[in-house]
Order: sequence, then C-alpha cells, then structure tokens
Amino acid sequence: MTQLDTGAPSQKVIESLYKFTDDFSDPSKFEQWKPKIKAYQESLNKNALPEYKVPESDVPKTLDTAPFNTIAYLSKTKHLSSEEHTITNLTATELASAIASKKYTSVQVLKAFAHRAVIAHQFTNFACDFFINEAITRAQSLDDHLAKTGKTVGPLHGVPISLKEQIGYAGRITHGGWVSYLDNIPKEDGVTIAVLRNLGAVFYVRTNEPQTLMHLDSNNNIVGRTRNAHNSLLTSGGSSGGEGASVSTKASPLGVGTDIGGSIRAPAAFAGVYGLRPTTRRISTAGGVSSGRGQESCVAVAGPLANSMDDIEFFMKSYINEGKPWDLDQWCFPMPWRTISTPKKPTEIKVAIMWDDGLVKPHPPITRGLKYLEEKLTKAGVEVVKFDPIETQKAYDVVHDMYNCDGNFMERQMLGKSGEPLLPLTKWCLSFGHGDKALTVAENRDLNYHRDNLRKLYNDYFVQSGVDLIISPTYVGVAPVCINDAIAGPYYWGYTSLWNILDLPTLVMPTGLKQDPAVDVKESNLPAPRSVIEEIEQNKYIPELFVDAPVAFQFTGRRYFDEEVVSVGKVIDGILRN
Amino acid sequence: MTQLDTGAPSQKVIESLYKFTDDFSDPSKFEQWKPKIKAYQESLNKNALPEYKVPESDVPKTLDTAPFNTIAYLSKTKHLSSEEHTITNLTATELASAIASKKYTSVQVLKAFAHRAVIAHQFTNFACDFFINEAITRAQSLDDHLAKTGKTVGPLHGVPISLKEQIGYAGRITHGGWVSYLDNIPKEDGVTIAVLRNLGAVFYVRTNEPQTLMHLDSNNNIVGRTRNAHNSLLTSGGSSGGEGASVSTKASPLGVGTDIGGSIRAPAAFAGVYGLRPTTRRISTAGGVSSGRGQESCVAVAGPLANSMDDIEFFMKSYINEGKPWDLDQWCFPMPWRTISTPKKPTEIKVAIMWDDGLVKPHPPITRGLKYLEEKLTKAGVEVVKFDPIETQKAYDVVHDMYNCDGNFMERQMLGKSGEPLLPLTKWCLSFGHGDKALTVAENRDLNYHRDNLRKLYNDYFVQSGVDLIISPTYVGVAPVCINDAIAGPYYWGYTSLWNILDLPTLVMPTGLKQDPAVDVKESNLPAPRSVIEEIEQNKYIPELFVDAPVAFQFTGRRYFDEEVVSVGKVIDGILRN
Repeated sequence: MTQLDTGAPSQKVIESLYKFTDDFSDPSKFEQWKPKIKAYQESLNKNALPEYKVPESDVPKTLDTAPFNTIAYLSKTKHLSSEEHTITNLTATELASAIASKKYTSVQVLKAFAHRAVIAHQFTNFACDFFINEAITRAQSLDDHLAKTGKTVGPLHGVPISLKEQIGYAGRITHGGWVSYLDNIPKEDGVTIAVLRNLGAVFYVRTNEPQTLMHLDSNNNIVGRTRNAHNSLLTSGGSSGGEGASVSTKASPLGVGTDIGGSIRAPAAFAGVYGLRPTTRRISTAGGVSSGRGQESCVAVAGPLANSMDDIEFFMKSYINEGKPWDLDQWCFPMPWRTISTPKKPTEIKVAIMWDDGLVKPHPPITRGLKYLEEKLTKAGVEVVKFDPIETQKAYDVVHDMYNCDGNFMERQMLGKSGEPLLPLTKWCLSFGHGDKALTVAENRDLNYHRDNLRKLYNDYFVQSGVDLIISPTYVGVAPVCINDAIAGPYYWGYTSLWNILDLPTLVMPTGLKQDPAVDVKESNLPAPRSVIEEIEQNKYIPELFVDAPVAFQFTGRRYFDEEVVSVGKVIDGILRN
Repeated sequence: MTQLDTGAPSQKVIESLYKFTDDFSDPSKFEQWKPKIKAYQESLNKNALPEYKVPESDVPKTLDTAPFNTIAYLSKTKHLSSEEHTITNLTATELASAIASKKYTSVQVLKAFAHRAVIAHQFTNFACDFFINEAITRAQSLDDHLAKTGKTVGPLHGVPISLKEQIGYAGRITHGGWVSYLDNIPKEDGVTIAVLRNLGAVFYVRTNEPQTLMHLDSNNNIVGRTRNAHNSLLTSGGSSGGEGASVSTKASPLGVGTDIGGSIRAPAAFAGVYGLRPTTRRISTAGGVSSGRGQESCVAVAGPLANSMDDIEFFMKSYINEGKPWDLDQWCFPMPWRTISTPKKPTEIKVAIMWDDGLVKPHPPITRGLKYLEEKLTKAGVEVVKFDPIETQKAYDVVHDMYNCDGNFMERQMLGKSGEPLLPLTKWCLSFGHGDKALTVAENRDLNYHRDNLRKLYNDYFVQSGVDLIISPTYVGVAPVCINDAIAGPYYWGYTSLWNILDLPTLVMPTGLKQDPAVDVKESNLPAPRSVIEEIEQNKYIPELFVDAPVAFQFTGRRYFDEEVVSVGKVIDGILRN
C-alpha cells in the first residue's frame, strides 16, 4: 500500500518544536495495561449490538486510504427502516414534541437512534461506550410515566443525547482518553448528566476524544481514531470529535461536548453541524476527567452540538431554566436563559469578518466560504465590516502559556501512570507554551493580567463598534487529514483558542458549502510563511484530500451575551438556508 | 505616660509565627521617600479646609490613650449648623430624593458633608485625600444641569460618596497604603468611579487603608492610623477602615470599600454601619492598586458601606442596572439587579446561627449579641437553627495559603521599592499560609480544587436545609484596640475570610447593641485555647477597653443571590429596629 502524501511536516521540523522530555512513557508498564484496553474494546464491540450492525462487507477496507462518505451511505442505507430514517432525521426539538404528543414513543426513538449509531460507529469509530439495553429500559420507564400521568418528566423527555466520554458517568468507566483512567469508575454522575436526566434525556452512547483531551483530533490508545463522517481520511475534530461524528451522522440528535481551546467548535465545524461554546459557568463541567483540575486561567466549558439552531437554543434554555444547574454545581451562575422575543432584523445586524488572524492564513475553501457569507449577508441587508485582528499573537502566546503553566505536571502524572506511548499531537500539546518548564505562581498571575487586558480590548471593540458578531474561521482549513496518527493533523489552534482566552460565547454554523478540489485549488504565489507553524499548516493543503469536507465558521459575541449570539445566529442561519 | 495593658501578644509569641524574611525594608532607602510622605501629609492637611475645622482645643490630646467617642461629639457639635446636622443625618436615598425634588441643592449637600468630614477627620484621621473645591464645582454643574433640564443626570445625582483611596482616581496620587505608590498618578479613573460619576455621584474625600491592604486595621507609613469613631482606642477596621469611620461619622452618607478577607465587613461591623460584600464580579474592582494582580483563587470585591439597608439596596440597584459596569469592565457580569417585589414574611425566613467557628471562640459581647438576635428573631416568627461549622479549619488553611501563594513576591516588590518599615500586622499577613515560600502552579491549582469542594459543601447546605441566611460573628470580638501600631490588633480573620473563599454574598448589619464592660465581663473558666491564635485573641479581651464598641454580625446567603440576601436582610433589619 503506498503512503498518501498528506503534506505532513517532517519529523525534523516537528521535533525542533518540542519542549518536553518524554521520560514517562514506558512500554513495559504499558504492557500491563493492554489487557484492560482489550477488555474495554471487546465490551464496546459487544455492546454495539450485533443485530444493529450492517454486514462487514458494507464497510470498505480502504477507510483510511481513500475518502469514504459515511453520511451519504447512511442517508440511503436499507439497513435502517423507513421509520428509522424518518425518526433520525428529526431534530431534538421535533423529537421532544413528537414524543410528548405521543406520535412516537421514547423506546421507538431510542431504538432508531441506537441502530443508526451502531452503523455510524462501524464506519467512523466514534463511540467509546454503548449501553443500549439500559437505555431501552429507561425509555420504557419514560413511556410508562407519560402513559400514566399524561405528563412528560421535563422538556427533554425521551430525547436521546450522546455524551462526550470524559463526563463522569456513575458506574461506567470514565477515562477521558487516558489509559490509566480505565480504572476510574465514578460513583456519581457528572452534574450535566444529572441535569439532563432530570429533564428527561435518554443516554445510550458515550463518544470518543483524544489522548490528553488536548488535540483538535480524536485518537487515543484505548479505542483509536474517530473518522470524519464526510470523508474518512479526515479528522472528526477534537477533543469532542466523537460528538461531531455522532451528530453529523444522526447517531444522536443532540450531543454534549466540552471546549477549552476549540473542542466543541472544531468538531462541529469539521462535521458541518451546529455547536455552541457558551460563556463559562453556564453549563456545568463538574464531575469530568481532565488534566485541568483547579486551573482557572482559561476555563473549560461544556455545550451542545446539534443539527439546527433551534436545538442549540432548546438545549440551552431547557438546561439552564429548568435544569437550574447552580443547585447541583455552585460553579454555575444562577443566570436564567433570557428569551429574546424580538430578534433583530437583518438590517439591524452588524457583523465583522476576520479574514485572517494575522498569524496563519486560511486555506482556499475557508476564504471562499467567508466571501460567500459576506455576499449572502450583505444581500440580506446585514452590515458587514472587516475585523482587524486585535493582539492575536499575544492572545495565542498567553493562552498557550496558560495551558501548560504547570509544566505538564498533571499530564505527566495521568499519562505516566500507564506508561502509554505518546501520540504525535500529544507531543505537540505538551510543547505548548513553555512545555515542561513550570511557571511560578507570580508568572501565572501575570498571564491572567494580560488575559484580562485582552478581554478589555475586545469588550471595548464590541461596545464601541456596535458589532453583534465577529465571524472567523474555526480552523485554518476544513478538517485536516488524520490518518497515520494525525501527523498531518491540526497543529494551529489560534482561531479557536482566541475565544477561549477571551471567554466569549461562540457559535459554529455550517455554511452549507463543502470543499471542492476543482474550485478550491492550491494558491500559487503565496507570500513566504510568517512562521514555522504557518508553513506547516499551508503545506497540508492538498486539495484532492479534502473532498466533501464542510465549510463552517465561528460567530462570536459579547461575554455572557450567549442569548444574543444565538438569537442573531438564528437570523443569519435563516439567511444562509434561504 | 503609662502604657495601657491591651492584652497584646508578646513579641516572642508573635515572632514564633513569622514565616517571612525581612530582607527588603531598608531605612536608608526609606529616608528618600520621607519628603514625599511629608508633602502628601501637608497636602492632606491643607485640603481639609481650615474654615471647616473645629478649634484644635476641641480635639483631646488623649485620643490614643483614653476612649473618645467622635460620633457623640459630632452629634451635638455647634460647629455644624442646624441645616448641616439635618442634611448629614439623611440617608443617601433620602438625599437623592431631596436633591431631585430641589429641596436641597447638590452644593448645599456637598458642603454639609465636607464640613462634617473635615471635623471627623480631625478626630479619627480617616481621610487620605480631600478635594472639596473641585467637588463644589462638580456639585454646581449638577445643580446647573438640573435647573436647565429639569432632570437629574442619574439616580445618584448630587449624592456625596466617599471612596477607599485604593481605587484609582485620575490625576490624583493613588497609593493603596504603599509608600512606593506615592509616585502613582493614574491617567484614568477606576471603573467604579467612572460608573458612579455617570450616575451623578459627587466625590470629595478618599479614605484610609492599611499598609499592604491586608490588615483588619487601617494604619500605614503615609498618613498613620484611623481611629474608631465610637472609641478612639479601637481600630476602625480594615482594609476599608477609612470608609467605616467616614460612614459612621456621617462624613459621607455612602462609601465604597473593597474586600478580599473581610475588608468591607470588619470596618462596617466595627463602625456599627451596614456593609455588603457582594458576590464577585457584580461591582467592578478594575483600576485599583493591589498586590493581587492576576490572582483569582480568592478574588477581591468592591461594595457599599452605608447607614441603612435602603442605601445598600439603592447603591447596588443603581450601580448595576443603570451603571452597566460590564460595558466598561468585561470582568463584571451583565446580570441585572433583580427587584424582589414580595419580600419573605418573618415566618417564611429560616436562619442558622454560627455561635463559634470551632477555631476561635468569640468574646462575650459577640455571644451576647447572637443571643439577642436569636431571641428577637424567634419572637418575630423567624425559624432559627444552629449552624454547625462546615470544614472551617480547611477553609482557613486554604484561603490563607491562597493569599500568599506567590511567596509574597508582589508584596516584597511593592514594599521593597520604598524600603518602608513593616508594621506588625504586615509581618502577620506576610506570614499567612507558607509565607515567603512560593507554591507551584500545580499546588495553587490544588488549592482551587479544595476551595471548589468547600463551595460545593456550603451550596449543598443551603439547597438542602432551606436556610436563607447564615448569621455569624464578623470577628472574634468588637473592634480591637489598635494603638501602639496595632500589636493588640485583629489577627484572626477566619470569620470573614470564610465567606471570601466561598464567594458568598455577605451583609453586615449592626444589632444596635454596644459593648458594655459591666455586662460583657471576661469569662472565667474558659477551656484551654485550641490554638496559639485562639489564645492571642482571647487574651485581648479586657472589657473596659471596648466601651461603646458596636456589635454587628454577618448575614450570608447563596452565591449570586445577593438580591435575596439584601431582601431578607431588610426584613431582619426591620425586626431589629422595632
């Protein structure tokens, strides 16, 4: 088999950027964990119910060498019944209403999604954990409740929801991508699981994520890599990459991811679905596995991925207003989700486009997508201006310093315990900032100070310009190729991590466009790269590899104005869908 | 002159607790700063307008050796006109209304308060900075505006407000108690000043605070110590001690303090006035001088001190809803102040009393005050239960570790620059936690983790018990004696810092009781002290020293339920005033 040219950086270039010492991965130690990994994989395979699977002959052997479109396959597979097709094509909002009105039972709905999920998993490897029989029992109890009382238990009654595996689930292994956490079985559900369960959600699948949770890809030493459902060569994104695959394949109508540097938004964009990185402290992250315990310089958030703007809003409003997460997690603000009853008209909206962050130039399909957006929005009466990046180099440096400012202390413990080998993108994330060099508390405080100054600059920008949303690329390109352990994977996080350090609510919406090798040709006469990282990212653009990859953007608003972001986002979505 | 026995700990005991090395105070370096200190003092003395002063013969020479009650003096002094007495006895709410209805002009009001302030300063030394003539010009322009337009500029139109000196004031030295900051003249106003000015406030006096801002006393090498207005031997508290003196003497109807360990609440309690430590991020602290830049493990807040609950509410509501601080300071949440239109009836209220935090037993007047409260509230129909302290030792240890976890890095820089001598309570605060030993970022994160666990325990307590407010001592005793550089000063912060680490909104309200040597006698047969710090605090209770000191308590509610704390607080205040 000939190796595909993926434009990956040479070993020499990448190694020149490393800022860590791997004195903790340990093949002999890892050997002892292999039986646990094997048992986990067997359990996953067994729980992906055999009766739901398509014949192995349907699954190409070439998934990792030639593009395969799982979404196209699923849309017409006869292995799903006509009713299953109908049900799984509904949004969460529609499902909730159909179940409440007894058009479908919770059990019917769950089975349809579980069936589709198992098939999607055969192609994309998006799941870590299935528990379909328990879910059927739960769905049945919801049906019984509705039959008996005539009432739903909450707004999400019977809605199947996929969960990023990292969120602690009572009684089930919760590893977060670390082999050493195959021993971790939480006694209690993470708060977000508890809240969603109270609202009536049904859980049946938990989804994949990368080693360390710090890649924009989803690969680990436990279940391996998740493929993009549009093109099997590409990454499904990360760290909530399993969710991107789940929602885009309609293995679930709604999923929950987490995001500290792009981990909801990259998967949503790469999958061509909707995703919201809310402002911090609106959706609970309590009870999850991560290396960031007690880290609050750049705080992780949880948020939804979905197939429609209605579902994004439905999730946020139900979760916050009826879920009252602050009663379970003191970290969440008791700030109700405000209903914006009079959305702005297109002519009242002002957006600013960031064409280039000044550090790493976007690939051709991204630039084409921005032009498309500009044209569509302008035609609809929206005021579109150019956004001149504000201190993006500073923001990049500060947030990457923050990620690792414990000198990889926690990662080294969590990885070192099993001695598992380090994936290339793990080596990359361990090299962020100062890598193994721990900062002092005084230096960490100084980073916080610079972060706050950056936040002030962007807040002033919004207040003074009257811009509703800044539109920006989610990543340099569409989903990159992530075969071969993702050595051609996504290295540059600057487009997403910018909004994490600023803690600004950011929506990802698909344009409906897809990469087209015939149109999105490689640019000639590119100026000399401004940095090694720009060179790495530019070299990866080999048009024919990216066929069918969705083009989606970030829409960013003011801190804690999540409601306005969603409201204006819906108007823009309406313009794009017209 | 014989030295008063203040029950201060011996030099040996105190020094045994020190965890810092003073290799940075430097008499010869300090010598060079003395002219700046002298100039500052002269300017202060000159700007305390001579025509407002009472004759020096009115000011006892024995202020620092025998109790003197400035409040009693002021209440009947003939040096204030009858109209000045009337005006300065109004609350901020009443003043705003009287000015808006043109009963008084802004100039009249300002002059009355400025006059009273200058006199109060002669006795208590509460001010750092007067600028009365500028304030008269400002008040005149507000009067002109009202005359011309018939409208006020905002809800605080013409209301005189005193400001803790630490808050950056454009064009005026802002030192925060550090001699080296006598060179610091901010170009811009702190956000809270900008917000209040937009609402119509008039500024004329900035108030004293301690060296480092980390004492529950207010003494520094720039202007010296502020005396308690009820009893000149006692401390006015700290770090917003100037504000406690200002509001209790009615030198201002409303003041702004800041609080990271008790700095609004101790001064409010020691002064017998109302004070609110809001939850973080509701009132801006941007633009202030402090050693905590970028520190966010235990975050400082700003909040009001006032002479009535109405004024506390008036301040919070005006500041937040009309001031919209989030437009100027991205750190503030865009969370409106909710009006609670149907306050709970006494019989719907449940409170829990913390009689002792399990670490340092309160002095007799505090225990008497709690009994008084219990009786009054019970009689009114309030349900009163006992609060069993939750992990108070852990909370004390964690928050004190947090304060110093940079190993005093910033304090050493800020103090060391001038070489100023260290006051006893500075030595004490430099010894918090691990003193000079800097923690690692990983250790700091671990403290945050423990903090979050504590917050969860207390949140669970509120949610599960249905308790509206926890009532607790503000300090071990009433205001302690702070002559002789406060070596008998307040060492134990556990009662206030508990609510900082938990970030719970906490109101201070006076009971109306005062310490009475005849009633609050020293307890005999006290059990052996549980710790050195308990022994130190117990030894200081020498009943006759504390005559006239007010007894006030903390009332603490759920995080971000500031509105409920104020609303229930008003009901309780009503019961106490009946």
